[in-house]
Amino acid sequence: MSLKVAVIGLGSMGLGAAQSLLRAGVPIVGCDVSPARRASFEADGGRAVDSAAEAAADSDVVVVMVVNAAQTEAVLFGPQGAATAMRKGGVIIASATMAPDDARRLAAKAQQAGLLYLDGPISGGSVKAASGQITVMASGTPEAFAAARPVLDVIAETVYELGSEPGLGASYKIVNQLLAGVHIAAAAEAITFAKKLGLDLEQVYKVITASAGNSWMFENRVPHILEGDYTPHSAISIFTKDLGIVSAIGRMEQFPLPVAATALQMFLATEAAGMGADDDASVARMIARVTGLDLPGAKD
Amino acid sequence: MSLKVAVIGLGSMGLGAAQSLLRAGVPIVGCDVSPARRASFEADGGRAVDSAAEAAADSDVVVVMVVNAAQTEAVLFGPQGAATAMRKGGVIIASATMAPDDARRLAAKAQQAGLLYLDGPISGGSVKAASGQITVMASGTPEAFAAARPVLDVIAETVYELGSEPGLGASYKIVNQLLAGVHIAAAAEAITFAKKLGLDLEQVYKVITASAGNSWMFENRVPHILEGDYTPHSAISIFTKDLGIVSAIGRMEQFPLPVAATALQMFLATEAAGMGADDDASVARMIARVTGLDLPGAKD
Repeated sequence: MSLKVAVIGLGSMGLGAAQSLLRAGVPIVGCDVSPARRASFEADGGRAVDSAAEAAADSDVVVVMVVNAAQTEAVLFGPQGAATAMRKGGVIIASATMAPDDARRLAAKAQQAGLLYLDGPISGGSVKAASGQITVMASGTPEAFAAARPVLDVIAETVYELGSEPGLGASYKIVNQLLAGVHIAAAAEAITFAKKLGLDLEQVYKVITASAGNSWMFENRVPHILEGDYTPHSAISIFTKDLGIVSAIGRMEQFPLPVAATALQMFLATEAAGMGADDDASVARMIARVTGLDLPGAKD
Repeated sequence: MSLKVAVIGLGSMGLGAAQSLLRAGVPIVGCDVSPARRASFEADGGRAVDSAAEAAADSDVVVVMVVNAAQTEAVLFGPQGAATAMRKGGVIIASATMAPDDARRLAAKAQQAGLLYLDGPISGGSVKAASGQITVMASGTPEAFAAARPVLDVIAETVYELGSEPGLGASYKIVNQLLAGVHIAAAAEAITFAKKLGLDLEQVYKVITASAGNSWMFENRVPHILEGDYTPHSAISIFTKDLGIVSAIGRMEQFPLPVAATALQMFLATEAAGMGADDDASVARMIARVTGLDLPGAKD
């Protein structure tokens, strides 16, 4: 591939995407403000810098995998941002979860700068990112899709083409995050309730995952709780952010979201208890602490 | 099989169990207060009566698939109840969702009456009931399991043996219902929110069922919403009951269950809107009515 690519943000998702591109022989520069993260990518034989403009110099495709809309805007359009450095007519793939309005606003700024913009939030977790198998929920013009395609083919297993309007990708992702967040909070509530009822939690996991009460998140996160291992695969703070976006959109659209709002409060309580940087299954640990349950790792 | 069996309660689950026993050539009498439900079973060639005592006369196994603990107690130990009519040493399989304390209390009454008792709530829905493939979350003495086994083998695909104490089966079922109820409410909230955001709901279904936001209930119930078909496979009133039990146990155990409590309010609102006997996916129809969304069937 003769494209030049930059990946901005080398957290677990960005690092996985950058590694996948490196393995595929794509000319790739990574960018992160964290020296430790840059070192991770360099250990793989990649090149990493701390300036978005430097990473994006003459790039055809810039993949932005930072935390939110504000960071995306800063690395693209702030001082030393990527937008002025990349090739005119190149494409930005913006993968942070953000409100649809933010995606539309950033797409308009890209267009003003002579750039294509793919609204492309991602899903799948760090393991799938490392193996180039994430899911991208994408919307944008046919030109933006065409320009992004060679990179998407390397980093993603599934690309949903959700329409030509920026904001659609963000909207689908937000609906997914509403459900994912509620299901994590419900899993934590249910498994701690089961403990309170004196049940065998390994047996609960076995029964529920084979029953109508199952969810993707119950199946994926409850093992963390059973092992008492709160190493952050995805942190509590990701969901205070994402359910915060969900709730903000609900207020703006005058649309009540009582279940999501309650789940958000559970994540906020967990963050308030000092576990914001821990795995999002920590909602169970917070409940265990409050209620005095003896759950593995709950007292740590 | 030389056992005599009675099935009390010929709703969709009881009818399915009775049909499965009939097909297997087991001597079976059905019982329901509803003439229409009795007629359903008789149309299959079964025998159905309106008195639990008559149905249970000389029975070795009595399967009780009524709505709750109060009905279970009435058909077993009330006037014209099954307990005094069945064979001494026979086994009751009690399948209504109920609080663990109720299961323990009914088991003690059975023991006093010289009967075995299997705390055996069920899961799987009407389709699986009809094909003899339900899941039973069961607890009871080895003697109760042994006596119930020939019937369980006919009506169930999976039998979880959860311990020798009555109340354990009920507890696992309650944990499952907490999750199932929350997931239905979350599915309704998410799909109506997606509609508010202007998304293509068929596409939302496709994306979410392949993503981390998926749940068994999202996958199973959202098609009812997309088709605007609220024919009750499982009614709203089942979940106001089951999440009501969950909440009552939480208060009794002084254990906070904010997510389940919020989901319960959504089912109560749907019941208050006159849809208590409709399919539990009607939570989405209630939200659509309140918010003025144009969802299929929401105005009916």
